[in-house]
Amino acid sequence: MSEKAYALGIDLGGTKILAAVVDITSGEVVASARKRTRAERGQDYVSQRITELATAALDAAKLPNGESILGVGVGAAGQIDHKAGVILDAPNLGVHNMPLAALLGGQFGKPVAVGNDVEVAALGEYLYGAGKGYKNFICIFVGTGIGAGIVQDGHLYTGLTGTAGEIGHMTIQAGGRICGCGSRGCLEAYASRTAITRAIMAEIHHGRPSLLADDAAKQLKEGETIIRSGILANAIQQKDELTIEAVTEAANYLGYGLGSIMNIYNPESIILGGGVIEALDLLFETAVHRARTVALSGPAKKTPIVRAKLGDFSGVVGAACLAAQTAGYQFPNSK
Amino acid sequence: MSEKAYALGIDLGGTKILAAVVDITSGEVVASARKRTRAERGQDYVSQRITELATAALDAAKLPNGESILGVGVGAAGQIDHKAGVILDAPNLGVHNMPLAALLGGQFGKPVAVGNDVEVAALGEYLYGAGKGYKNFICIFVGTGIGAGIVQDGHLYTGLTGTAGEIGHMTIQAGGRICGCGSRGCLEAYASRTAITRAIMAEIHHGRPSLLADDAAKQLKEGETIIRSGILANAIQQKDELTIEAVTEAANYLGYGLGSIMNIYNPESIILGGGVIEALDLLFETAVHRARTVALSGPAKKTPIVRAKLGDFSGVVGAACLAAQTAGYQFPNSK
Repeated sequence: MSEKAYALGIDLGGTKILAAVVDITSGEVVASARKRTRAERGQDYVSQRITELATAALDAAKLPNGESILGVGVGAAGQIDHKAGVILDAPNLGVHNMPLAALLGGQFGKPVAVGNDVEVAALGEYLYGAGKGYKNFICIFVGTGIGAGIVQDGHLYTGLTGTAGEIGHMTIQAGGRICGCGSRGCLEAYASRTAITRAIMAEIHHGRPSLLADDAAKQLKEGETIIRSGILANAIQQKDELTIEAVTEAANYLGYGLGSIMNIYNPESIILGGGVIEALDLLFETAVHRARTVALSGPAKKTPIVRAKLGDFSGVVGAACLAAQTAGYQFPNSK
Repeated sequence: MSEKAYALGIDLGGTKILAAVVDITSGEVVASARKRTRAERGQDYVSQRITELATAALDAAKLPNGESILGVGVGAAGQIDHKAGVILDAPNLGVHNMPLAALLGGQFGKPVAVGNDVEVAALGEYLYGAGKGYKNFICIFVGTGIGAGIVQDGHLYTGLTGTAGEIGHMTIQAGGRICGCGSRGCLEAYASRTAITRAIMAEIHHGRPSLLADDAAKQLKEGETIIRSGILANAIQQKDELTIEAVTEAANYLGYGLGSIMNIYNPESIILGGGVIEALDLLFETAVHRARTVALSGPAKKTPIVRAKLGDFSGVVGAACLAAQTAGYQFPNSK
């Protein structure tokens, strides 16, 4: 069958909202619309942005006559009530109890599925990205925090409380740096973009010279809280010693985390995604090297560690696929 | 059907070998035989002990007329080639390339299944112990080292290279204590019985008073390499400060590991086993408390953490069940 089918995917992150109409038979994005989230303006503002962007993407897609979307899927950076389609809590989005299924269902009259951002991105990579062909793998995203989606026997595995894959909160340095979760020594406190930013800014505040002293300070003054991947990449290219040191340190911790997962879960592959992974070869390569020294010899030799393929679109493609699944669509390579 | 069926299980550990005839319809041990392993006497000696003990258990079982065993199962503390039924490498047993399936198949003329000790123990707990009723859980054993068996969707999950569950080699203190595996900061280097022994003996060597100064030194001189659980339990009961301190420290590290697993894998339950867990309430309770402070709130509140139920017999029961499964027996609560 070569018939096409479409769904609308929405990637709701702390920095930006991206909506896209996706051909879910190929994983291709037909049309998309994006804007900054501006979480600081409050929940109603964010709700309105979501519906605006969804409409804009749908209009831009100009679906052929008679074609319609199967459903609407959302991946949101927060805790989700999957059944009710509600974002329970999302500190980075300034959102609490947002009834997205009701909101978007009312607007489009289609089934709505809401998932965690990392989960839906893992689903996207499974169906149309670097996870194709694997039945048991883990897809790890490094950004503001560090999270993962676990695909187990061809299905998203969410665990007892729906929170499986919170690998940012594995202890990597017992009793170490305090983490946002309240525990100490979590991977996220050492290897996220937030952690890299803190390490760099602390040194700059103490007078250490760096190409980032101006760039990063300027960007942070503009209201962003962490240094952008592009700025880090540029500083590394210009051989800025402080940036190289901070990124290498974070990469080594990330490698300890990856090696630990290879030992604990022994997945068929590890997929790494997120802007900072895409932008920084130094981070990716150092982490992979460290992971292979930490892991036991079997997994160290045999586990593929690859970058995510869908890039910025992994969230919307995954969200659209989740919507299609919820609407009853059967993907050929899923069980 | 109330008909009984039997299999022979062998638990091959660094300290002792235990063979038992198990009624695999109930998980009950019908008869057993045990001896010290004496790995230092070499591989041929260990082979001979295994066949002697297997015969002794079978003789002692006095199976009713016409009844026979379905097969022979072995759980061994080492790296296993599951298909060939060979122990590839087991440093604690002084064993390398031991063809157990051929050896025991030749002796008894029955199917033989060989698995890792921790895997088969997890299978035993799943079918007849603390894992009954759970489909996704992890069964962790603390002893000379720390290992785990993962039951996923009702089946043992062994991973890409057959080594899933090596949680003793998750990094808990990046760059920390050297571990037997060659990496640094592994959980096993902080929370195993070996680690507890080292911590205690180091202090004693530096002159710190302890009730263990005589007991432990005597036991270690007799050729054992780590302090027995019973000796530790006794010292704690007598409020020996050094022992309490060392066990509490190990328990806290173990708790960081458990909390990390609750965050990463979010299992339906965690089962803890091994002699030191059975013998030391202080270790178990401190680790559980720490785990619940490390884990995110959902899993912290909801994940049952319980002790293994089959005790010393988890290995032989699991090994016998593995043999029965291999011989085609269908357990009612497995899928």
